Amino acid sequence: MNQDAIGVLDSGVGGLTVAKEVMRQLPKETIYYFGDTLRCPYGPRSADEVKSFVHEIVSYLMQFSLKAILIACNTGTAAALQSIKDGWDIPVLGVIEPGARAAIKVSRKKKIAVIGTQGTIQSRAYEKMLKSIHPELQIYSLACPEFVPLVEKGLYHTPEAKRVVEKTLAPLTKLDIDTLILGCTHYPLLQHFISQTMGDQVNIISSAEETAAELSSILYHRNLLSKQYGKKHRFFATGSQYLFQQIAEEWLGENVEVERVDL
Amino acid sequence: MNQDAIGVLDSGVGGLTVAKEVMRQLPKETIYYFGDTLRCPYGPRSADEVKSFVHEIVSYLMQFSLKAILIACNTGTAAALQSIKDGWDIPVLGVIEPGARAAIKVSRKKKIAVIGTQGTIQSRAYEKMLKSIHPELQIYSLACPEFVPLVEKGLYHTPEAKRVVEKTLAPLTKLDIDTLILGCTHYPLLQHFISQTMGDQVNIISSAEETAAELSSILYHRNLLSKQYGKKHRFFATGSQYLFQQIAEEWLGENVEVERVDL
Repeated sequence: MNQDAIGVLDSGVGGLTVAKEVMRQLPKETIYYFGDTLRCPYGPRSADEVKSFVHEIVSYLMQFSLKAILIACNTGTAAALQSIKDGWDIPVLGVIEPGARAAIKVSRKKKIAVIGTQGTIQSRAYEKMLKSIHPELQIYSLACPEFVPLVEKGLYHTPEAKRVVEKTLAPLTKLDIDTLILGCTHYPLLQHFISQTMGDQVNIISSAEETAAELSSILYHRNLLSKQYGKKHRFFATGSQYLFQQIAEEWLGENVEVERVDL
Repeated sequence: MNQDAIGVLDSGVGGLTVAKEVMRQLPKETIYYFGDTLRCPYGPRSADEVKSFVHEIVSYLMQFSLKAILIACNTGTAAALQSIKDGWDIPVLGVIEPGARAAIKVSRKKKIAVIGTQGTIQSRAYEKMLKSIHPELQIYSLACPEFVPLVEKGLYHTPEAKRVVEKTLAPLTKLDIDTLILGCTHYPLLQHFISQTMGDQVNIISSAEETAAELSSILYHRNLLSKQYGKKHRFFATGSQYLFQQIAEEWLGENVEVERVDL
């Protein structure tokens, strides 16, 4: 059981930011990563559609022996976390709670902004989570529908990406926030431009680091941490293997073999 | 159940650094704080003695309806966490795991130092926890027996405290670490001098912030977070109420009534 893999899933390459942090913070663990690149982006889709996609992916991954599932996609977490938790008997984590908790931890002004896909922002999942813990927080939300397609096309280093980030986030720079939650696992690939735009005074919260730490905590408390170094990570994608592989290798800094899956 | 208090205990005033973070990050929760000021410091005592003290305190606190226990004392965590977990049916948290996990999260060089009491350092609890998760870490440990008495006497702002911190930490400033774990809940009261001594390049990890975030996570996942704002916090101490109250009011920034307890 302890040596079983952790299933990590996303609409595409965004969840790799979380996978990378899991590899760094929990180097003994094995990851089976699933990117639904064919049907990416999830952001503009209905919650019901996203939910059915996440269920399909989890069903696929559960053919392997898994000890935990990590929905490394904010849109997927908002739409499907609860029903995946209800449907399976192993620990299931999303990326929204850890990010919300981390924002509460670092924000001193109690003024927090959240950026995410249309689906995530419309779900108000962050707002509900933040307010349920801390009713006095002031929260600003902004959908950034152009960010995910830029990342999936591998354009996150380009001057075009810089322009899009600056233009999209301009309204947030006028607010007196001290904390910005990257409410989409794709956004850490744009973090350089996001930090530049927001300035030094704003703490940038990436779900990736926080979710990996929370996974570590949950595996520890359930006595599920790997005792030895694990097996080779595996990567599955529904769309083009080539672009996925390129981004994964650049981001993870290691060789990646991508297995094509038809759902 | 959700509106029940959280029991927080320490050898003295150190656990107030954790209590303060719980109040900040989880403002709806109620805290029953126990400081064993009469028998402080725990650091130089044997593990067996510290364990029996922690059991006495938890037995005392459990007369109230509690939904969780937080051993906000590193020496107490090292000596008694497992047996308190085994003995009681509610979630029990220590301060060592969250701090270790946070250090792994922020350290890029994988070179981490831990400071704590003699009891904590001798237990090698941090080292074991860090290495079990991440075998490649380089870890340096240093006992700082003079720190707790300085804090308990209310002398943490003084030039004497500055001198003691500088002298004690001098060996660590020659190492190429990027992360220092404050492995004692009293040490955040000396954090200003500790940061000055270590310099900007070293991340200072306070168990307080991380433990409060982990408590938030555990209460959330067990569906135990308070739904409404809670009752008044209560404070118990075995020794002098006066000095405890003074430090508690300064640190928490609110009026504190201390109830004297004979164990």
